[in-house]
Amino acid sequence: MNQSPPLAEIFSQGDEIVSGQTTDTNAAWLSEQLVRMGFQVTRHTAVGDRLESLVELLREIASRADSCICTGGLGPTSDDLTAEAVAAAFDRPLITDLDALVQIEAHFTRTGREMPLVNLKQALLPDKSARIDNQWGTAPGFSLRHGRCWFAFLPGVPFEMEHMFLETVRPELTRTWRLDPMQLVTVRCAGIGESAIQERLGCVAFPDKVRLSFRTGPIENQIKLLFQPDVPQADIQALAERVAGAIGSPVFGIDGLEQDSGDLVTVIARQLTQNHQRLSVLETLSAGAIASRCGGARWFKESRVIRDRAEVFKHLAVSCPADSNEESSGKEASVLASALAEHCGSDFALAQLWNFDDRALADRNAVISVYTGLATPTGTCEHSCKLTGTASRKQTVAATQALDLLRRYLQGCL
Amino acid sequence: MNQSPPLAEIFSQGDEIVSGQTTDTNAAWLSEQLVRMGFQVTRHTAVGDRLESLVELLREIASRADSCICTGGLGPTSDDLTAEAVAAAFDRPLITDLDALVQIEAHFTRTGREMPLVNLKQALLPDKSARIDNQWGTAPGFSLRHGRCWFAFLPGVPFEMEHMFLETVRPELTRTWRLDPMQLVTVRCAGIGESAIQERLGCVAFPDKVRLSFRTGPIENQIKLLFQPDVPQADIQALAERVAGAIGSPVFGIDGLEQDSGDLVTVIARQLTQNHQRLSVLETLSAGAIASRCGGARWFKESRVIRDRAEVFKHLAVSCPADSNEESSGKEASVLASALAEHCGSDFALAQLWNFDDRALADRNAVISVYTGLATPTGTCEHSCKLTGTASRKQTVAATQALDLLRRYLQGCL
Repeated sequence: MNQSPPLAEIFSQGDEIVSGQTTDTNAAWLSEQLVRMGFQVTRHTAVGDRLESLVELLREIASRADSCICTGGLGPTSDDLTAEAVAAAFDRPLITDLDALVQIEAHFTRTGREMPLVNLKQALLPDKSARIDNQWGTAPGFSLRHGRCWFAFLPGVPFEMEHMFLETVRPELTRTWRLDPMQLVTVRCAGIGESAIQERLGCVAFPDKVRLSFRTGPIENQIKLLFQPDVPQADIQALAERVAGAIGSPVFGIDGLEQDSGDLVTVIARQLTQNHQRLSVLETLSAGAIASRCGGARWFKESRVIRDRAEVFKHLAVSCPADSNEESSGKEASVLASALAEHCGSDFALAQLWNFDDRALADRNAVISVYTGLATPTGTCEHSCKLTGTASRKQTVAATQALDLLRRYLQGCL
Repeated sequence: MNQSPPLAEIFSQGDEIVSGQTTDTNAAWLSEQLVRMGFQVTRHTAVGDRLESLVELLREIASRADSCICTGGLGPTSDDLTAEAVAAAFDRPLITDLDALVQIEAHFTRTGREMPLVNLKQALLPDKSARIDNQWGTAPGFSLRHGRCWFAFLPGVPFEMEHMFLETVRPELTRTWRLDPMQLVTVRCAGIGESAIQERLGCVAFPDKVRLSFRTGPIENQIKLLFQPDVPQADIQALAERVAGAIGSPVFGIDGLEQDSGDLVTVIARQLTQNHQRLSVLETLSAGAIASRCGGARWFKESRVIRDRAEVFKHLAVSCPADSNEESSGKEASVLASALAEHCGSDFALAQLWNFDDRALADRNAVISVYTGLATPTGTCEHSCKLTGTASRKQTVAATQALDLLRRYLQGCL
């Protein structure tokens, strides 16, 4: 059980990657999959469209990794050199795969186009490789073993690559290696910073068999617990609960145990859908980010995005106090939320105000104040906070704070 | 002038990268900078927090590249091994840099915290390296030459890394190499697909000294022209104009000539700000994406995001036809836009309708119809289109189409 995990590498091909035209998101996606399956990923490498570099890299990897997933370079143009590089590196002449040819032609027929002659090239696969069918595009992939390493070659288009990995490569890897999959548990929080999380976790003892990491951002903060294969399920469950308990009300869900909770919006969606309730929102600072994150869901009735303070009050026919301080602004947000809920006939309404200071918003070191009011079937509540960072960060965090106020009400942890 | 460009590599350090917890955006950013400066970027490599892998990789790179920019591994924790790896790989003992120590302490004082002892480690730099000051965080970087290669080590936090690269590394690279910078011109379009772009460019002759590439997405499509250093400015200008002319009205701007046009929203913002005009929007399908892309700008008066068809008409007190077909829906969008402009007292108003078919929205192969109306000081106009793809892609493209209708009116190319 405690053998060391097989080593995997990721190899991305393409001038658009090494020249920085495209960010390589495939490498991160594949690595996350492989780590969870029980591989240790040791290296990512990207090289451009030069045959010599590709050949050299393939040989290097064949000598040091147990498995390598390669993406890109399977297209029809002269820049797409992967199959040719494999042929040269491992001495496997390219042979036309007739089934691949039929599939490529069928793809064109299906999309109502004639197959250009250049696409013939995509049916050329290295001798004694296994074809990996691509139902989602034209380029088939292939796999082969050389030296100690089993290679899978997939197209660079993320959608095609992900499907082909999940349907063909992953089962093949599972058959080939006796893998001990790690278990990843993610504790998901909103409305708390990384240093506060670390402070609250000070009292939790983490055994050696779990690896702790944090992912922080304006949308949520995650505590990731990656468990060694031999940790009993009961211990995993207990530690996850201890972590969630230590952090408290900022935790909105846990992924990786029985059922994934999903993100903040999913947690809210589940509850509102179940209760046949709907939400309306009045956005100011967040400038449409709340509506946008809810993505036109059925439980999301409407949002008004209004830029100027005076217009907000005018819009809801609520009298606008000339002057406002911290305390009155929080109250105002609640009054606006109630007016909105009534106006829209929705069960819940969120209304957000801020100190409407454009200069402070644009200055990443300056602080702005944000006031959120929530109207519910049982009354109103408020939340206020101070935010810094770029304008875009402040807007995103403001949206998170508003959604999280609703989530806390729904989960009964206000 | 025609010597081959110096070779550069990018090296990223961190378990969070090789395990897929973090997508390495630094590599793409740095590559784009280096290519534009006149380097040829040959390889990106990421390795985890293992001293042995780091040492091996540093030695490999020192033997094959002229320059290498490394990110990550400069933090205070035991996982941060970069300086130690450099010391081991190139035989340069670590020495406390007193100026670095003072700066790190000052950073903590500035942010009102006491410096933890672990941060002492960040002042340890390899012997005979040059410190790269970090005014934006705690970790200083450093640079040194070994073998044929000049290395710069920068923190992995993108904001700090980018500032340090632009202020210290770039000038140093420019002093060290006689670089022939390439010139990048980007022709930016909206409302046209990649195949249509390629068809329209069929009549344009591209000389050998320009490299053509495309970047496509739901927000915009870009045609990138990367010119060799010895192409005269007049030829660059002429080719860029020929490309823009061949594509026609979908082109909203050009970057890389005299003045960058910026993105679609920037083009709109420039015009509306100059004319002291404001925009209001009625969003349905786009679910807040239009407001969100405009990010709370002064010229953006307000947006109403409404989910249900009946509510849209009720909201603006416009009578809602029970049945609607393609033609009437376009007309309705215009009527709604006019009503919104009047209601909000704004110069321009966009209103968007669609066929409100949730099932087709969710099905990535299904087609939905989108109708946009624009009210302007001189009358109304309409645009309709059909969209496929994931729900999120359809929503993003719908937002782009709406903003682009306004842009076309403002640029007089409807």
